[in-house]
Amino acid sequence: MPTADRPGPVVTRALRILAAFTPDRPSLTLSELSRQSGLPVSTVHRLVTELTAWGALERDPAGGYHIGLRLWEVGSLAPRGLGLREAALPYLEDLSQVTRENVQLAVREGTEVVFVERIAGSKAVPVLTRVGGRFALTATGVGLVLLAHAPADVLDQVLACPITRYTEHTLTTPYELRAALAATRARGYAVSDRQVTTDALSVAAPIHNAQGDVVAAVSLVVHHGTVSPHTLAPLLRTSARAISRALT
Amino acid sequence: MPTADRPGPVVTRALRILAAFTPDRPSLTLSELSRQSGLPVSTVHRLVTELTAWGALERDPAGGYHIGLRLWEVGSLAPRGLGLREAALPYLEDLSQVTRENVQLAVREGTEVVFVERIAGSKAVPVLTRVGGRFALTATGVGLVLLAHAPADVLDQVLACPITRYTEHTLTTPYELRAALAATRARGYAVSDRQVTTDALSVAAPIHNAQGDVVAAVSLVVHHGTVSPHTLAPLLRTSARAISRALT
Repeated sequence: MPTADRPGPVVTRALRILAAFTPDRPSLTLSELSRQSGLPVSTVHRLVTELTAWGALERDPAGGYHIGLRLWEVGSLAPRGLGLREAALPYLEDLSQVTRENVQLAVREGTEVVFVERIAGSKAVPVLTRVGGRFALTATGVGLVLLAHAPADVLDQVLACPITRYTEHTLTTPYELRAALAATRARGYAVSDRQVTTDALSVAAPIHNAQGDVVAAVSLVVHHGTVSPHTLAPLLRTSARAISRALT
Repeated sequence: MPTADRPGPVVTRALRILAAFTPDRPSLTLSELSRQSGLPVSTVHRLVTELTAWGALERDPAGGYHIGLRLWEVGSLAPRGLGLREAALPYLEDLSQVTRENVQLAVREGTEVVFVERIAGSKAVPVLTRVGGRFALTATGVGLVLLAHAPADVLDQVLACPITRYTEHTLTTPYELRAALAATRARGYAVSDRQVTTDALSVAAPIHNAQGDVVAAVSLVVHHGTVSPHTLAPLLRTSARAISRALT
């Protein structure tokens, strides 16, 4: 595989330019793109010109570049992105309207959670996530659901690396995590109680495809102490089943 | 610019592979990709391998390819896609909950409308649009708003090509269109009355950025005959102003 030392084929270099953009860096100049991608400015200039002509990048009034609408359009064809989200949205709306809390829909990508949809509740607890954003599998409710149903080697990879401690309640030892994952499988839902922030509790349930594989997870995130996770669990489990049915 | 006869640089060829995927063709085999992109199978194979390694494409169980979650994640950084949508969503939800009708958010890309968000009403009229989908500027309410506030050369380009007639009410002559666009600017909203389908009416209003430019449009699509457009107009105009304020 290409590395920073061996730049690799030209398409991979163009993809490295796209990967330089992040939620924290949505707009970049040519020299910032060069620094982030590790490619010479002359190469960046040539690739950016091609990407801009096609619409994958667009130019800011200030002279920087940002991701273009054309790439958003193509990306929206990802079955695990917008396809899943379109099928799930009516049920997420129902959860949002009934509870007025934060509703989240997520999938697993490698050893991370990717949030595909989030509906913020009107009086809900602040959450750290955003649509298209990533998070550790180990801390959030949706992450625990997705990790509980992932192939065994995914858990091995997660345990092989240091686990981020967000609060004093974050599970960080293999023993604690394996116990939480076993409980998640046995009960049919996961609970993350102040494991991401000290004021939030999330309850999450698995979404299955027609083959019975867990392909996504749905969660509610509420203020810690306002409601018991066991009260929320039936709500999440029935919503997850409704979404699973809509996928088949 | 590269054409089918002159394949052009390698990045442009890779982008042609991505552009082969459409809402009607979300999954393609190597030979279908070759046919759609006009590139030899050997070239397609090499580029698809690179795109898949990075996550821009993913492999189906059946052996075809579809757009990958990684490309969806990068695409979600487009300010005119997800950024706009995140700012607008609470107001779109309000419109949806109050009216129970179809709510749409759209931007202009060249001479077409691109739908950035759509919330389907529970008992609403069927609509032809989808998130990430395109439509003619001339037929829909959002299209008329965006065309009314586009640079003059955009209207020239639209009028230089045949205008699709969806129903007997679709505006197709330069005279009719110019009159509708002038009315849209004067009133502050557009009406598309059975101009897309014979049973739907849409009312749309412009969304402005901090510089006062029209950057998007919001609409309600209702059954024709159930409500007067003039009743809906204040609702759309205030919602559009609320979204405009959220963008600044």
